Amino acid sequence: MQAYNPDFKALVEKYLDRQHFMKHIGFTLDVIEVGRTEGWLTLEKKHQQQKGFAHGGLIATLADITAGFAAYTLVPADHNVVTGEIKVSYFSPGIGQKLHAKGWVVKQGRKINFCEAEVWSIDDDQRTLIAKATTSMVTVFPEDIKR
Amino acid sequence: MQAYNPDFKALVEKYLDRQHFMKHIGFTLDVIEVGRTEGWLTLEKKHQQQKGFAHGGLIATLADITAGFAAYTLVPADHNVVTGEIKVSYFSPGIGQKLHAKGWVVKQGRKINFCEAEVWSIDDDQRTLIAKATTSMVTVFPEDIKR
Amino acid sequence: MQAYNPDFKALVEKYLDRQHFMKHIGFTLDVIEVGRTEGWLTLEKKHQQQKGFAHGGLIATLADITAGFAAYTLVPADHNVVTGEIKVSYFSPGIGQKLHAKGWVVKQGRKINFCEAEVWSIDDDQRTLIAKATTSMVTVFPEDIKR
Amino acid sequence: MQAYNPDFKALVEKYLDRQHFMKHIGFTLDVIEVGRTEGWLTLEKKHQQQKGFAHGGLIATLADITAGFAAYTLVPADHNVVTGEIKVSYFSPGIGQKLHAKGWVVKQGRKINFCEAEVWSIDDDQRTLIAKATTSMVTVFPEDIKR
Repeated sequence: MQAYNPDFKALVEKYLDRQHFMKHIGFTLDVIEVGRTEGWLTLEKKHQQQKGFAHGGLIATLADITAGFAAYTLVPADHNVVTGEIKVSYFSPGIGQKLHAKGWVVKQGRKINFCEAEVWSIDDDQRTLIAKATTSMVTVFPEDIKR
Repeated sequence: MQAYNPDFKALVEKYLDRQHFMKHIGFTLDVIEVGRTEGWLTLEKKHQQQKGFAHGGLIATLADITAGFAAYTLVPADHNVVTGEIKVSYFSPGIGQKLHAKGWVVKQGRKINFCEAEVWSIDDDQRTLIAKATTSMVTVFPEDIKR
Repeated sequence: MQAYNPDFKALVEKYLDRQHFMKHIGFTLDVIEVGRTEGWLTLEKKHQQQKGFAHGGLIATLADITAGFAAYTLVPADHNVVTGEIKVSYFSPGIGQKLHAKGWVVKQGRKINFCEAEVWSIDDDQRTLIAKATTSMVTVFPEDIKR
Repeated sequence: MQAYNPDFKALVEKYLDRQHFMKHIGFTLDVIEVGRTEGWLTLEKKHQQQKGFAHGGLIATLADITAGFAAYTLVPADHNVVTGEIKVSYFSPGIGQKLHAKGWVVKQGRKINFCEAEVWSIDDDQRTLIAKATTSMVTVFPEDIKR
């Protein structure tokens, strides 16, 4: 994998500052490396669905953010990344104190970056893989914007 | 399609009252019919990703909620529904004043209810289909809980 | 939807002639229109999995072919189309005399054409929707080939 | 992961003998272990799509077979497994002399076995990961058949 923007970390941090939905749900992206990112969320009542588990939409959001920014670390500075599609499979209910999400690029392409993500729950000292995601992150070229 | 619980609407409404994440993002499920639901969300700054568009995770959440409760309308009263997997494809950026989400059951099964969902953006008088989702909603039997 | 190549039908037919795997399984693509295609397959023993049903891989192949050529009808003559990803959901076992597959473009894009497909079984006078697929068909530009 | 049927290998081999479509395409499943299987296919002209690459439907078939039989190794002898849904992402064109497919169970469940698969191409001494798949393999209980 090749990162075309040496300042990818500063760029991702600028975008994170504008990620209002990410802030609204309380997720923070702490690890930003070439082709991979990681972050954490402290589970609160506001994250729950009707049975008291972490909402599937919340988990999909964490997968989307970590995979999307993993792709962002690889594209040129004047390019953007949008989610083309994402599939999330749910293995176990999300319970406990925290969620830990990781996203990475599996196959870098000029137009599509195939990425994957995992979401883990932390319940006391028990780590459980609760969901996995695969996604097509589409690179937006500068000439796409002008169109 | 067959609804095994004649009081499905009251049951779904009880669950909606406990959907803390749905309330946190400001979505309301207004239409609850046999095998389909619909709802609306007023777009605010808190829903945006870094480019000012509705966050992909938000859109996935609306698809998950509408498809999931569509499946809930069909199962017996002592059964539950959990999302097995969901795939969301993103056609256009989510902009404007409102999002409108619809979910429905395509194929009812004893264990899996295959559902679909659409999310539309309302920008002044422009309606745009911004995303479509397909999902496997898994029926949880009473005996599954005891295990 | 816009077809950039007025001779799309001749081009698709040229490609069909080189679709060795399609011929090997016995599928024929009979309908080629702007943004949609359709075809038929006569079920034989060679198409079966261990329980005597049409193999899931066969059904995925029909979905891939009809959706892929639906996308081909829309791109310029010097462009190509490759499957980026496909998800197939299986509703019912494939039995009977024939399979009927339809593919169409849901959202045409410059780089990605989001398509869908349905596969139906024909068992005497009973038509059953046995599978649905969603897929990202990626447009290959002439400059991609040179790279 | 737990295999409920100690004779899973004999059972899978019995089913393989009836996999007419698998034989028709020339794939053989050589490795059958608890929760995972592997197999090989010698690429011939009949496997090609219009550009001379291995057909996407062929690749999906290999992913479906290896993941499906991986799930079969874990269920009781009187249970069956059917593909609920499968998503395949295509990273690179399939070229060379052989394809090598691997499938495994990621999360065993009572009703759904979440599986993954990889397909590699072997071109002289070059091994390339050309596709990855995620799938929900649904366990069919004996009482489901009677219904």
